Amino acid sequence: MQGLLLSWKHCCASSKVLRFADLNMRGIGQVMFQDNPLSGLLFFLAIGWGSYASGMPQVAIGGVTAVIVATLTAQWLRVDGTALRAGLFGFNAYLVGLALPTFLAPSPLLWVYIALGAIVSVPATLGITNVCKNWGVAALTAPFVLVTWLLLLATYAFTGIDGSGLPRTDAIVPIDPMAASPLAIRDFIQGVVVSIGQVFLKASVLAALLLVVGLAVNSMAAAIFAVAGAMVAVITAHVLGAESNLITGGLMGFSPVLTAIAIGAVFHEPGARVTIYALVATIFTVVVQGAMNVVTTPFGIPTLTSPFVLVTWLFLLPRQKFDSAPEA
Amino acid sequence: MQGLLLSWKHCCASSKVLRFADLNMRGIGQVMFQDNPLSGLLFFLAIGWGSYASGMPQVAIGGVTAVIVATLTAQWLRVDGTALRAGLFGFNAYLVGLALPTFLAPSPLLWVYIALGAIVSVPATLGITNVCKNWGVAALTAPFVLVTWLLLLATYAFTGIDGSGLPRTDAIVPIDPMAASPLAIRDFIQGVVVSIGQVFLKASVLAALLLVVGLAVNSMAAAIFAVAGAMVAVITAHVLGAESNLITGGLMGFSPVLTAIAIGAVFHEPGARVTIYALVATIFTVVVQGAMNVVTTPFGIPTLTSPFVLVTWLFLLPRQKFDSAPEA
Amino acid sequence: MQGLLLSWKHCCASSKVLRFADLNMRGIGQVMFQDNPLSGLLFFLAIGWGSYASGMPQVAIGGVTAVIVATLTAQWLRVDGTALRAGLFGFNAYLVGLALPTFLAPSPLLWVYIALGAIVSVPATLGITNVCKNWGVAALTAPFVLVTWLLLLATYAFTGIDGSGLPRTDAIVPIDPMAASPLAIRDFIQGVVVSIGQVFLKASVLAALLLVVGLAVNSMAAAIFAVAGAMVAVITAHVLGAESNLITGGLMGFSPVLTAIAIGAVFHEPGARVTIYALVATIFTVVVQGAMNVVTTPFGIPTLTSPFVLVTWLFLLPRQKFDSAPEA
Repeated sequence: MQGLLLSWKHCCASSKVLRFADLNMRGIGQVMFQDNPLSGLLFFLAIGWGSYASGMPQVAIGGVTAVIVATLTAQWLRVDGTALRAGLFGFNAYLVGLALPTFLAPSPLLWVYIALGAIVSVPATLGITNVCKNWGVAALTAPFVLVTWLLLLATYAFTGIDGSGLPRTDAIVPIDPMAASPLAIRDFIQGVVVSIGQVFLKASVLAALLLVVGLAVNSMAAAIFAVAGAMVAVITAHVLGAESNLITGGLMGFSPVLTAIAIGAVFHEPGARVTIYALVATIFTVVVQGAMNVVTTPFGIPTLTSPFVLVTWLFLLPRQKFDSAPEA
Repeated sequence: MQGLLLSWKHCCASSKVLRFADLNMRGIGQVMFQDNPLSGLLFFLAIGWGSYASGMPQVAIGGVTAVIVATLTAQWLRVDGTALRAGLFGFNAYLVGLALPTFLAPSPLLWVYIALGAIVSVPATLGITNVCKNWGVAALTAPFVLVTWLLLLATYAFTGIDGSGLPRTDAIVPIDPMAASPLAIRDFIQGVVVSIGQVFLKASVLAALLLVVGLAVNSMAAAIFAVAGAMVAVITAHVLGAESNLITGGLMGFSPVLTAIAIGAVFHEPGARVTIYALVATIFTVVVQGAMNVVTTPFGIPTLTSPFVLVTWLFLLPRQKFDSAPEA
Repeated sequence: MQGLLLSWKHCCASSKVLRFADLNMRGIGQVMFQDNPLSGLLFFLAIGWGSYASGMPQVAIGGVTAVIVATLTAQWLRVDGTALRAGLFGFNAYLVGLALPTFLAPSPLLWVYIALGAIVSVPATLGITNVCKNWGVAALTAPFVLVTWLLLLATYAFTGIDGSGLPRTDAIVPIDPMAASPLAIRDFIQGVVVSIGQVFLKASVLAALLLVVGLAVNSMAAAIFAVAGAMVAVITAHVLGAESNLITGGLMGFSPVLTAIAIGAVFHEPGARVTIYALVATIFTVVVQGAMNVVTTPFGIPTLTSPFVLVTWLFLLPRQKFDSAPEA
C-alpha cells in the first residue's frame, strides 16, 4: 500500500492535473477524516455505485462537481496551502453536492444551486474553522450542515427549485409504538452496514463495504471504530425503541459512526479510557439523533450530520488528555 | 455557623466518605451559586420535601443519583480539583436528575436515561466552561439546559421512554386575554414564594422557604436578591399580562430569581449601580421567559432555565465594572 | 460637504446639546455603516417621511426615542468614548425603535417596551461586540435582531402588548407557484428601490432615494454597492422564483443590500476581487432570506436583518485579504 502511495506521490509531483486530482480525492477521503487519495478513490467508487444502483446518478455527479468547484474556489481565495493539500476544503462541498440532488428534483437551476453551495462552503469552512480554532477543535461537517440546511429550507420559498425529495413538514407527535418492532438478526446486520453508507447519504450494502475498505487502507483503527460505532448505535436505538425503519435504513447510525471514529480514533490516541469516552459519546449521539429528528420535523429538512457535529464538539471541547498519568 | 462549618471541614479531612458527601452537597448548593455544604443540605431537604409532598419521590432520588454519578464521572475524567471541590460539576447534573423524572414517567429505562444525562453533563460542563472562559463568563446552567432539552426532545422519537409529563406540542397562538386575570394579594405572595421553589422545579411553599434559608446561611445578599427578584418578576409578569396560572405557579419567576442573584450578588460587588443593572436584567428575563415559552411551544419541551442563561450571559458579557470611579 | 461637516464639528465642540445630537445622528447613520451626522440626518428624514406617508408616525418617533434612550444608557454605563462618539451604540436601538411600533399596536405599554428594548440593546451591543472581537468581526445588527425577536415573541405570551401587526404563525408549506409571476420592468425598478428602504422597514420610494443620498454624501462606494446589491437581489430572487409580492415589496432585498455594502465597501478595500466576493455573498443572502422566511413561519415573527448578519459573518470570519499579491 505504502509503495503504491509513494509512486502516486511521484506522479503528482510532475503533473499539475494529477495534483489537482489528488487534492480532490483527499477532499472526498476527509469526509471520514482520511487524508489519503486511495481512501478518497474508494469512497468515490462506493458513492458512484450507490448512486447508480439507486437510479440517481446525479448524486454522484453532484458530489464530484461540488468538490471540484470548491477546490477551485479555495485556490481563487488563496487559502492556506497545507490545509488545501490535505483536502480540508473538499469534504464539506462533497457532502453538499451529494445532499442537494438527494433531496431536490433534477433541473438546470439545481446545478446552479449545487455550484453556489460548493462555493459558499469554502468561506463557511474558513470561517467556522477560525471560530473553532480558539478552543482547539475542528469545524467537522458543520459547514456542510449549515450551508445545506439554508439551501434546503429556502426551497420552500422558491418555485424554481423543487424540494419534492424533502421530508414532509409536520407537527411533532410521539412515535407510534407499533413503529418500533423487535429487530431480527438480519435487520440488525443490515442496520449496522447501512449506517456506514448513510454517512454519504447512501443506503447501499456494497457501498458500505467499499467505505470500510477505504477506511482500512489508511487507518485500521478508524475502520474498527466505524463498525463498532454502527453496532453500538443500532443496539442503543433498538433498546430505546426508535422506529425500526429508521434503524434498518441506517438513519439512526450514520452520525454515531462519525462520532465513534472522531472521538475514538482521530482526535485522541486510541486506548482503553478513550474507548470508554467514545462509547458514551456514541450512545449519546443516538439520543441526539432522535432529538434532531424531532426538532427538524416542523421544518421539513433532514438532520444531516448535525448530531455528530454537536456531540463531537461537546466531547472534544473539554480537551481531555487520556494518557495514563493521573492529572489531579 | 462558621464554627459548624469548621468542624465539618475537620471531619471531612479525615474521611474520604465525608469528603465525597461534601463535594455532592456543594454541588447541590451551586444550583444557586452557594459553595457551602450546609446550603446544599438545606436545598436537598427542600427538594426532598417538595418531591415527597407532591407524590413524586423519584424526583429527589433522581437528583441525588445524578449528582453522585456526575461526581464519579468527573473524578474518572480527572478534572481540575479546585472546581470539583467547589461543586461545579454537580449542580448541572443535579438539575438534570430533577428534571427528567419530573417530565418523564418512571420506568427502568428512565434511570438509564438519568445516568446518561448525568455522565454527559460533565463533558458538557467542561466544554461550555472552556468556551465561556474566553470572555470571562461562567457556564451557568447551560449544560443542564442543553443536555436535558436533547434528552427530552428525543423521547418523542423513542417508545422506550414515556414523555407523558411533557407540555403538549402545539402551534403558537396569542394568549387568551381571559387567562390573565387580576392578581389578588394572596396570589401575588404565592407567586413570589413559588418562583423561588421553581428554580428546582418544585411548586412547594415550604420548599421555597427552606431554599431561602439555605441561601441566607451562606449569603444574606443572595437571599435578599432572590426574594426581591421574585417580587420584581411577579409584578412585571402581571403588568405585561402574562397568564395568571403561570405567575402563581412560579413559572414566570424562577429564571428572573436566578438572574437577580447572579447579576446582583454573585458576579458583581453589590451596590446601587449594580442593583439598577440587576433590576433591568431581571425585568428583561421575564420578557425572555415569555419569549421562550412561545418558542418551545411547537417542540413540546419546557424552557428550563434558558431565559436565565441567555439574559445573564447578555448582561455579563459586557464585563462592566461598577466601581464608583468614572471610566470615560 | 467637508466644509459643512467641519463647521458642524466646531459647533459641537462648544455645545453639549449639539454633541448629544451629533452622537444620535451618527447612531442613525451607522444603520448603514456611515459614521457621519449628515448621513444620519438624511436617514432620519427618510424614515420620518416614510412613517408619515404610511400613517404610522409612531414608527419614526419610536426610532428617535430608542436611540436617545440607548445613548443615555451607554453614558450611564460609561462605555468606551470612541465607540460612543462614532454612534456604535445607537443604530441597533434605532432599529429596535422602528421595528416594535411597526409590528405592535400603539398603547402606553408599547412605549415601555420600546424603552426596555433600547436599554437592553446597549449591554447586548457590548456583549456581542466582545464575543465578535475575538475573530475581528463586528456585531453588525445582531443585537437588534436578538433583542427584537425576544420582545416580539414574548407578545404571544402577554395580553398587555398587542402583536396584531406580526405575520401569522403558520405551518411551513412550499410556495404556491402562482405567487411567483414574471416581473415587469416597472416591478423590477420598484423592487430595487424599495429594497433599500426596507433596510429601515420602510416601503417608500422617496425614503429610499433619500437613503441613497445619505449614503452618497459620506461614501460613494457605499451608495453604489447599495444600489447594485438591490439589483442583484431582485434578479436572483426572481430567477429562483421567490414570491413576486415579496420582491416588489423589497422584502427579498434589504438584507442583500446590507451584505453588499458591508462586504463590498466597508470591511474590505473596494476592488475587482472584493466585488466578486461581495457578489457571491449578496446572492447567497437572497437564499438565506428565503430560508429565514421559512424558519420564522411557525413562530410568527419577521426575519429582520438576520440573513444579512448570518451571511456577512460567514464571509468576514475567514478574514480574507484581497490585495493583489498572491499568498499561497
